Amino acid sequence: METYLAVDIGGTRLRAASYPADGIQPIEQSRIPTRVVGSSPVQRIIDQVKKVWPKDSSVRAIGVAAPGPIDTDKGIIYSAPNIPGWENLPLRDLLEDVFHVPVRLGNDANMAALGEWKYGAGIGHNDVLYFTISTGIGGGVISAGRLLVGAWGLAAEVGHVTIDPNGPLCGCGIRGHLEAFSSGTAIARYVASELADGVPSILPASPAPTTLEIAAAAHNGDPLAKAAFDRAGYYLGLGVANYLHIFNPSILIFGGGVSRAGGLLFDPMRAALKSQVLSPAYVDRLAVAQAALGDDGGLLGALALARSG
Amino acid sequence: METYLAVDIGGTRLRAASYPADGIQPIEQSRIPTRVVGSSPVQRIIDQVKKVWPKDSSVRAIGVAAPGPIDTDKGIIYSAPNIPGWENLPLRDLLEDVFHVPVRLGNDANMAALGEWKYGAGIGHNDVLYFTISTGIGGGVISAGRLLVGAWGLAAEVGHVTIDPNGPLCGCGIRGHLEAFSSGTAIARYVASELADGVPSILPASPAPTTLEIAAAAHNGDPLAKAAFDRAGYYLGLGVANYLHIFNPSILIFGGGVSRAGGLLFDPMRAALKSQVLSPAYVDRLAVAQAALGDDGGLLGALALARSG
Repeated sequence: METYLAVDIGGTRLRAASYPADGIQPIEQSRIPTRVVGSSPVQRIIDQVKKVWPKDSSVRAIGVAAPGPIDTDKGIIYSAPNIPGWENLPLRDLLEDVFHVPVRLGNDANMAALGEWKYGAGIGHNDVLYFTISTGIGGGVISAGRLLVGAWGLAAEVGHVTIDPNGPLCGCGIRGHLEAFSSGTAIARYVASELADGVPSILPASPAPTTLEIAAAAHNGDPLAKAAFDRAGYYLGLGVANYLHIFNPSILIFGGGVSRAGGLLFDPMRAALKSQVLSPAYVDRLAVAQAALGDDGGLLGALALARSG
Repeated sequence: METYLAVDIGGTRLRAASYPADGIQPIEQSRIPTRVVGSSPVQRIIDQVKKVWPKDSSVRAIGVAAPGPIDTDKGIIYSAPNIPGWENLPLRDLLEDVFHVPVRLGNDANMAALGEWKYGAGIGHNDVLYFTISTGIGGGVISAGRLLVGAWGLAAEVGHVTIDPNGPLCGCGIRGHLEAFSSGTAIARYVASELADGVPSILPASPAPTTLEIAAAAHNGDPLAKAAFDRAGYYLGLGVANYLHIFNPSILIFGGGVSRAGGLLFDPMRAALKSQVLSPAYVDRLAVAQAALGDDGGLLGALALARSG
């Protein structure tokens, strides 16, 4: 039997699973913390792969979803924000030397996009725009049936685009990125700043409310909490309109914790979108969906990558 | 001998040419005005194609660069800004019915991108970002060796992206698009507005200076004229940084009249770009070039499209 292995390297969790040639039901799976004192993350990946390795050694390829920017051609992780020491790490070659099967690497947000396209909300589409909105904003693009990676694997940084040069600083240090307006961090920061300015709210100024608490307050009618989501949704609409003009996708897929806020975020997004598209043709047939794979998106994208050879 | 025909439908000029299987030296070519009283543009296209049709009837395909958004799958021109009556025009079928060879349609800015990639400044690259900066800003994207068209042919409207929602109105009616900051029209409008406000300049308030006159004044050291190009270049840098993060191209190609302003526009663009990229990896190996094909870009892109079947 042909087997394909998938690995998802999260900042905190490390997952591996084995799959048959078709379908998304794992044969074996395992998850452990990514970082433990006294054990290197690379060694832990190798151990995890061994744990799910089939007895018949029928593995055709290994797909790996890894954090941070990746040179997909060379199989090198440029850097991984949450894993100290991972700088220009040749993970593909390291794993191929151990396992002697083809290893394919992809950025985790790109892999989630690939997973949703192949096995989730994007099935049947050829032009897919996937956003994950959580503490940051990431995503991936399927264009004409292929994952967009760019010349050196650095494409599809969909949260790091300026939509207002006078806006707040982004986590990356550049001002006015989409992520600085519409991520969970941005929503929480906006509310904290308004509370500090004395804007009335049922939310306490201290400890600073989380995005989840702000969503709950908004559902309870708190005007500041609602304004925070209105603002995030408005800017998300500006950003999405730009992407419609750039990619003309047939479906938008939203994943990540903040996207579970639903209408709080997406009603103002849709309103902005409506006024910001060049022509109704961009939205008339456009599907909008929630991610279907949840936390498995990255792993299943790595599976799709493994099977893509 | 195999022959390929290319047609470039401009708002004012209509060009057609025939080519052999390789190279960009035309066998025959012809150009006439697009619109003449008493003659339909479609009939004029048919006449032009007949004019360059080879005697041996060896035509393999016809490529057409047409203005406005196009459904490339169905070969329909949604609308053409400068040609009244062209709404949902099935130009591909109309031409195939007359000539009985495959006809392929592309948007003119996309075709210029394709032409530059195949035969001009982009040769050898797989990820190309092409901008034409003239009265407006258009362009095209080659991603992983394929022209980006999107689900319904509406992609790559690279000038119509919001980079400052508080910015000036764009020609399309939406506020703060890249085109509203960095096109020739935007530069001229900014100068006119500053002159009306009494900002000192060697430029006269009336008649309103053209972009060419503003460029000449900037070369002569006029502070307002220089400020106008600095502003256009700064916003162009913001826009280009976004596109680097989105597409990670290996080359930027600039065409169009305003791009001939050279350093006036591109020095401030480069300065902005430097401070706006997520990582030096986006620009370290990035090539930046002037378009090589000039006015022939659209026609040669149509040729590339004809040969692509």
